[in-house]
Amino acid sequence: MICGIDIGGTKVLGLAIADEPLDPIGHRLAPTIYDSDSLVDTIVSMVSDLEVDTGRTADVVGVGVAGIVDRDGNLRYSPNIPGVVDLPLSGVLSDRLQRPVLVENDAASATWAEHRCGSAVGCDNVIFVGLGTGIGSGFVLDGVLHHGWNGFSGESGHMIIDKTGPTHLTGARGPWELTASGSGLTRLARERAAEGCLESVLELAGTADEIHGRHIHAALDADARDVLELLDEFGHEVGIGLANLIHLLDPEVVVIGGGLVDLGDPLLDAIRRQTSSFVLGGDHRPAVSIRPARLGNRSGAIGAALLASELQIG
Amino acid sequence: MICGIDIGGTKVLGLAIADEPLDPIGHRLAPTIYDSDSLVDTIVSMVSDLEVDTGRTADVVGVGVAGIVDRDGNLRYSPNIPGVVDLPLSGVLSDRLQRPVLVENDAASATWAEHRCGSAVGCDNVIFVGLGTGIGSGFVLDGVLHHGWNGFSGESGHMIIDKTGPTHLTGARGPWELTASGSGLTRLARERAAEGCLESVLELAGTADEIHGRHIHAALDADARDVLELLDEFGHEVGIGLANLIHLLDPEVVVIGGGLVDLGDPLLDAIRRQTSSFVLGGDHRPAVSIRPARLGNRSGAIGAALLASELQIG
Repeated sequence: MICGIDIGGTKVLGLAIADEPLDPIGHRLAPTIYDSDSLVDTIVSMVSDLEVDTGRTADVVGVGVAGIVDRDGNLRYSPNIPGVVDLPLSGVLSDRLQRPVLVENDAASATWAEHRCGSAVGCDNVIFVGLGTGIGSGFVLDGVLHHGWNGFSGESGHMIIDKTGPTHLTGARGPWELTASGSGLTRLARERAAEGCLESVLELAGTADEIHGRHIHAALDADARDVLELLDEFGHEVGIGLANLIHLLDPEVVVIGGGLVDLGDPLLDAIRRQTSSFVLGGDHRPAVSIRPARLGNRSGAIGAALLASELQIG
Repeated sequence: MICGIDIGGTKVLGLAIADEPLDPIGHRLAPTIYDSDSLVDTIVSMVSDLEVDTGRTADVVGVGVAGIVDRDGNLRYSPNIPGVVDLPLSGVLSDRLQRPVLVENDAASATWAEHRCGSAVGCDNVIFVGLGTGIGSGFVLDGVLHHGWNGFSGESGHMIIDKTGPTHLTGARGPWELTASGSGLTRLARERAAEGCLESVLELAGTADEIHGRHIHAALDADARDVLELLDEFGHEVGIGLANLIHLLDPEVVVIGGGLVDLGDPLLDAIRRQTSSFVLGGDHRPAVSIRPARLGNRSGAIGAALLASELQIG
């Protein structure tokens, strides 16, 4: 059995995977604790709990974590897990668990999971883009999960697409995730509602400031036309960054993950339409397939488990 | 002996390389002809001439060309060589020359040359950025020249950094090469001169509209302070795009090539300073080394020759 653990900004998800990654034999959930020692304790307990739950021993453990992870499995820092900085997560966990532990960035783990058993099986050049609070991404290039020099590759959310635009909480002006993430969609909806548009969503939320993703979702379910216009405008933002990635890396498939995927075809169609409008030389290159992620919020844990089982570690 | 040929927008350069790539035993130059048949004839003649010049036979031929080249060595299209579209360059040349011919994008060839015998020897994660009329670039990732799904990767010049900015000749708004190429520097200098700044350059050029790169170069040689300010402003544009590439691909080394490298340390220092101001988490990651290219305008031909000698082709 392999344990795959996904440490997010609010929750830690653990899966026990035997033969079939898509059908874990055990799972556990715990809150994320913003303290190194307690976070390590959480993971050690979770592995132990999964072993008890399943009656199996975890041979290796894979951890995907929302943060900057170097090639040695050290968590350098994480905007989403304040208080945990420069934690040698792989080393500490290997010592505590007395078995090989692989630590990887969560978006990279999700990328690998979608490549191995999700939406991009059989494709060797894949970009995964998770649209959530921010944007997380990862690249499979020529069949290999890309890490870069330090292990820090794939930070697409920080790609500047609007150099004179508004300032993000990172201090940068106009990074992709400012407008093309879930937060960006909510902000855009509030702006449009404050301007007197987007009646369908405004009706559900009460005031512009109270608009959340669920209101957009509900209006979409009711087939409101103004929401489709909103998604088209949002797709424009996503499309600029995707076209950048396509020009840079020439992928066969782009997998869209993260919470926004729940908006379904209307969002994906808008993203496809807008992206193709930004890709140059469309007559001379085959179209890139833009697909929804298949594995949902389990992709990070599944990918970490697969990476741990596949790589030579320890 | 290996022939390395670089087909640019105005010139075709051919090198005959024996043991030492940095010291070719023969070289030839010809004008680029914007017609498929004549262009093929030019290359065939050039290989023959280099054989006569050196008294050696070319075992393989490598061609780097300014355009979109697919994985099979077909030149799909080239903004710089109008009239040549969908030319199966590798196939046609192999037939005519009766030996293996590898065809690659010129910036990718230059990237490989700098990795193998230029500024980035020993570094497995390298980004090459050529600042010329436009921006050409290439990536070495984990020691491998990256091609992508079709062979089209590395089109960094089309990366949008200013989504509401001016429109480029491609129709895109605010792509990197619009402001961060040699043309971008000249345009910026003309703008500043028209505003009454940049006296040193204006004096040399006569009027703002007549400013060219050589005037910027000459003013720099004379240590004019206003040119340093110009380069700093230009470095800001280059730095935004380089920081994007660093966030995406986490390289160890960025090699700056193209004609602008002749501006030397003042330009490189401005680029280094501005790039580091845009890279996030600088305290948690080692600094990326930004270096000038070593091989100059021979890099495309040298790289194509090296690739032809190294890859299994034919």
